[in-house]
Amino acid sequence: MKTDLEIAQAAKLQHIKDIAAKIDVPESVLEPYGHHKAKLPLSLIDDSKVANAKLVLVTAMSPTPAGEGKTTVTIGLTEGLNLEGKKTVAALREPSLGPVFGIKGGAAGGGHSQVVPMEDINLHFTGDFAAIEKANNLLSALIDNNIQAKAEVNLGIDGRTVRWKRVMDMNDRALRQITVGMGGKANGILREDGFNITAASEIMAILCMSTDFADLQERLGNIFVGYTFDKKPIYARDLKAEGAMAALLKDAIKPNLVQTLHGVPAIIHGGPFANIAQGTNSIIATKMAMSLGEYVVTEAGFGADLGAEKFFHLKCRASGLKPAAVVVVATIRALRYHGGASLSELNDVSVERVEAGFENLEKHLENMQSFGVRPVVAVNKFVSDSEEEIQWLVNKCESLGIKCKVSNGWAEGGEGVREVAKAVIEEAESGKSNLEMLYDVNSSIQDKITTVATRIYGAEGVEFTAKAKADLRTIESLGLSNLPVCIAKTQKSFSDDDSKRGRPRDFRITIREFEFARGAGFVIAVVGNLMRMPGLPAEPASNRISVNSEGQIEGLF
Amino acid sequence: MKTDLEIAQAAKLQHIKDIAAKIDVPESVLEPYGHHKAKLPLSLIDDSKVANAKLVLVTAMSPTPAGEGKTTVTIGLTEGLNLEGKKTVAALREPSLGPVFGIKGGAAGGGHSQVVPMEDINLHFTGDFAAIEKANNLLSALIDNNIQAKAEVNLGIDGRTVRWKRVMDMNDRALRQITVGMGGKANGILREDGFNITAASEIMAILCMSTDFADLQERLGNIFVGYTFDKKPIYARDLKAEGAMAALLKDAIKPNLVQTLHGVPAIIHGGPFANIAQGTNSIIATKMAMSLGEYVVTEAGFGADLGAEKFFHLKCRASGLKPAAVVVVATIRALRYHGGASLSELNDVSVERVEAGFENLEKHLENMQSFGVRPVVAVNKFVSDSEEEIQWLVNKCESLGIKCKVSNGWAEGGEGVREVAKAVIEEAESGKSNLEMLYDVNSSIQDKITTVATRIYGAEGVEFTAKAKADLRTIESLGLSNLPVCIAKTQKSFSDDDSKRGRPRDFRITIREFEFARGAGFVIAVVGNLMRMPGLPAEPASNRISVNSEGQIEGLF
Repeated sequence: MKTDLEIAQAAKLQHIKDIAAKIDVPESVLEPYGHHKAKLPLSLIDDSKVANAKLVLVTAMSPTPAGEGKTTVTIGLTEGLNLEGKKTVAALREPSLGPVFGIKGGAAGGGHSQVVPMEDINLHFTGDFAAIEKANNLLSALIDNNIQAKAEVNLGIDGRTVRWKRVMDMNDRALRQITVGMGGKANGILREDGFNITAASEIMAILCMSTDFADLQERLGNIFVGYTFDKKPIYARDLKAEGAMAALLKDAIKPNLVQTLHGVPAIIHGGPFANIAQGTNSIIATKMAMSLGEYVVTEAGFGADLGAEKFFHLKCRASGLKPAAVVVVATIRALRYHGGASLSELNDVSVERVEAGFENLEKHLENMQSFGVRPVVAVNKFVSDSEEEIQWLVNKCESLGIKCKVSNGWAEGGEGVREVAKAVIEEAESGKSNLEMLYDVNSSIQDKITTVATRIYGAEGVEFTAKAKADLRTIESLGLSNLPVCIAKTQKSFSDDDSKRGRPRDFRITIREFEFARGAGFVIAVVGNLMRMPGLPAEPASNRISVNSEGQIEGLF
Repeated sequence: MKTDLEIAQAAKLQHIKDIAAKIDVPESVLEPYGHHKAKLPLSLIDDSKVANAKLVLVTAMSPTPAGEGKTTVTIGLTEGLNLEGKKTVAALREPSLGPVFGIKGGAAGGGHSQVVPMEDINLHFTGDFAAIEKANNLLSALIDNNIQAKAEVNLGIDGRTVRWKRVMDMNDRALRQITVGMGGKANGILREDGFNITAASEIMAILCMSTDFADLQERLGNIFVGYTFDKKPIYARDLKAEGAMAALLKDAIKPNLVQTLHGVPAIIHGGPFANIAQGTNSIIATKMAMSLGEYVVTEAGFGADLGAEKFFHLKCRASGLKPAAVVVVATIRALRYHGGASLSELNDVSVERVEAGFENLEKHLENMQSFGVRPVVAVNKFVSDSEEEIQWLVNKCESLGIKCKVSNGWAEGGEGVREVAKAVIEEAESGKSNLEMLYDVNSSIQDKITTVATRIYGAEGVEFTAKAKADLRTIESLGLSNLPVCIAKTQKSFSDDDSKRGRPRDFRITIREFEFARGAGFVIAVVGNLMRMPGLPAEPASNRISVNSEGQIEGLF
């Protein structure tokens, strides 16, 4: 069987100007990066076209550790919609470089549903992550520089209160907790710090929430840094940081155009985490795609309890966008998993387990309906699926009045996703989906969290630790109470307990603490432990990667 | 007076395909990055053309803290040679991002002798620095990952012996000395580490010494990391790091094409430090430029005691390249400085000080002659220069049989550098320069250092500290004795004492310790204290940088 890289490298790519021509973007406005990637100017966004285009969100049931293939479905569906006669553009996230050298590998789809050139997309791409990293770390350098600066310019920042961390797009656990400023006077002032992975930077969240350059610079200035020794809040603008940070992001703010394996335009831009941030591509990219296509297919990270909820409450609220259809990706493997299969049993056929696991998918479908949108189920096909299991699932969904179609993009590309495409068109053109927010943003932080926890997670209620209660008072004092809430929770369960698969009942969730993404425009409620800097495995994926004498990459999965 | 940025932004840039056409590079092989930058494939290197092209090295006398404008002269001379009918390409270093936000500002020439688009060149450019940073830090992550890995794959690296540091392209003094791996078992094993600025990474030196992909990967594998607990040396290849590092550098290895303000092709590639590394652009870029132009003008960092010496002993030795002419940049300001002027007196006219300071320039000219090359002096003109001072200098040089011409590229572009260009053509076409190395690479490390110290610096001899002597034994045990030596010394004096201006006599230099750039192919002899991670000033240049609502950068100098 061919690897993703072999399939991608065997593809005959079209010149990016020909891809652009398919969505009526003239070569003169393209900013090419080689022959197969280009940046697109913000001037391509046309609000009247955005209003008429149909946005399709791809989300998923609670995933197994391997993931359920949302990106593969998104790419296949984009091709499928084109085959069905709809001019469709994909709007995707940029992969993080860290996992490429770790366990997970690349994130540009799989099999015959990939975006290409996959090596570039998975490595540095057009430099957006590097720019975000640099902007983040410039602020860190300015903070430490000010802490030790002469009195005339010293803001009196208390290093112990600094919440802003450095970032690096690398799986590097040794950087999670560090001390900086060691070695005497010349090296600044000693304090504790740490590195997060770049996708977890608030700059990433900000870039993806911004609507233009001015908004970007404004949001960067709004970043909360920490307090002075006399307890005054310090923002990035107090350090005069936002202008230089925006300068570093002057190209990163522009969406990137690439193609699917079958030459369909795909816009890839931004990649914020789906727990501590909105987990979906930039507002700018989505609006641009909607300015260029009749249909836009986009995705949101993790299961719908995290990805879709944030897509609606954070991205749709901020941008005014509404999905015309929502696709919930399910797999037979994940249904078996929620029905009791262990990881080693994921490929074992079992209609019983599929039936037992359905309650997980069902809860996600109910959740989508509670937002006023009508879900379509896409069954992302694996070779281990039996006809019987699939048929059971299709029948079950149809009995609930929900369309359920097999998605075979991995093996067949868009041809394998035409049935899903047809169902999506039918739903989108029915006009029956009408997104409604579950909470009023002006209600209290506690109420907003409780609404999501009870209505989406199915919890009985919410506990707040003493630390979280103290943070709530800080939120109040910083005037952030009317921001929406981004709940950082495990993707493995509706609850805050990884082991509770299926549709857990009779549980409460505990908010451990809060973080403030004031620039991005939300507060983060942290449930349980949160990993913001992954580590490498004992035998990293980097071991097998190399470059041959023609400069072609080998061993990248 | 217009700023460099205003001059650069007012320029009407030509499309990069038109710039490429001037040196017969067809659009089909260009890898464009926007409309004004492109990467060039390694296949453009043609050894038979390299052999026929004339390489002109621009170096300088010992500089004042402000620098003497080598890049400005290099760019102006490139234009001047074209005006004189020679198809000429500049081969320059890439600027580091760190200083852009610090004190020094950008490094893309000045006034009417700049390379453009200067904002891009000074910020992320085509991502080469980011790629180098990532390759460097991947090795660090692999080291720390292995230190805490399970027994089957654990190499037994002794963290206390690890010489490989992380890097960031940022002026950030708080990162100079850090601890990593804090916070318990999940975060690896505690050890001391630090960040250097990216230009100081051995990866930067390696990229610039490599001749192709295979050589690059080989050199990356050769990097010396540290020792195991039982004292076995560990190299990057023991961590299986070189393949993934090379993959990260697959685009960074390709030279970048831009233009001067007057549309002359300039190749910009690589930017290693001029103290701990070779301080000049990549061998690949120089050879490519020589494959595309009749003349190539290139520069080497700091004064000729550092930049030219390393250019000859490291780069020319490794590549077989020989300069046809060498330009030594002098300024009246620097002559006054070496003649006793304080920093506040640099603009005060004084023929006496110029006369007194000439001995510094004279020593550099003698040094060039000792290498078998014939120098031309370019007097980089400042508004504070008097006719009388310039005339004295011209007469003095001519009395020594050395051509000395005024270079006014800052005010006039290439038109102001035509006299220098004529002198360079005359020297280059005379064929009288014939580079000879001052030392046999197979002589001992001590002898190689002593040769440079006595013949180039004018020292009486060399002292080695106890640490340096111990390092010499390590060099012996690692089998590195037959590598050339890169001496890391202050640029402010021929001696190791900043305060000794002019032409110091009766001094010895002290080698404090050694470092090993085994991948790059040299050992580094460290004289005095060495800054590898600058800091920001109290009021960083970043304070005044911003992006206006059209996405145009303001305040970048």
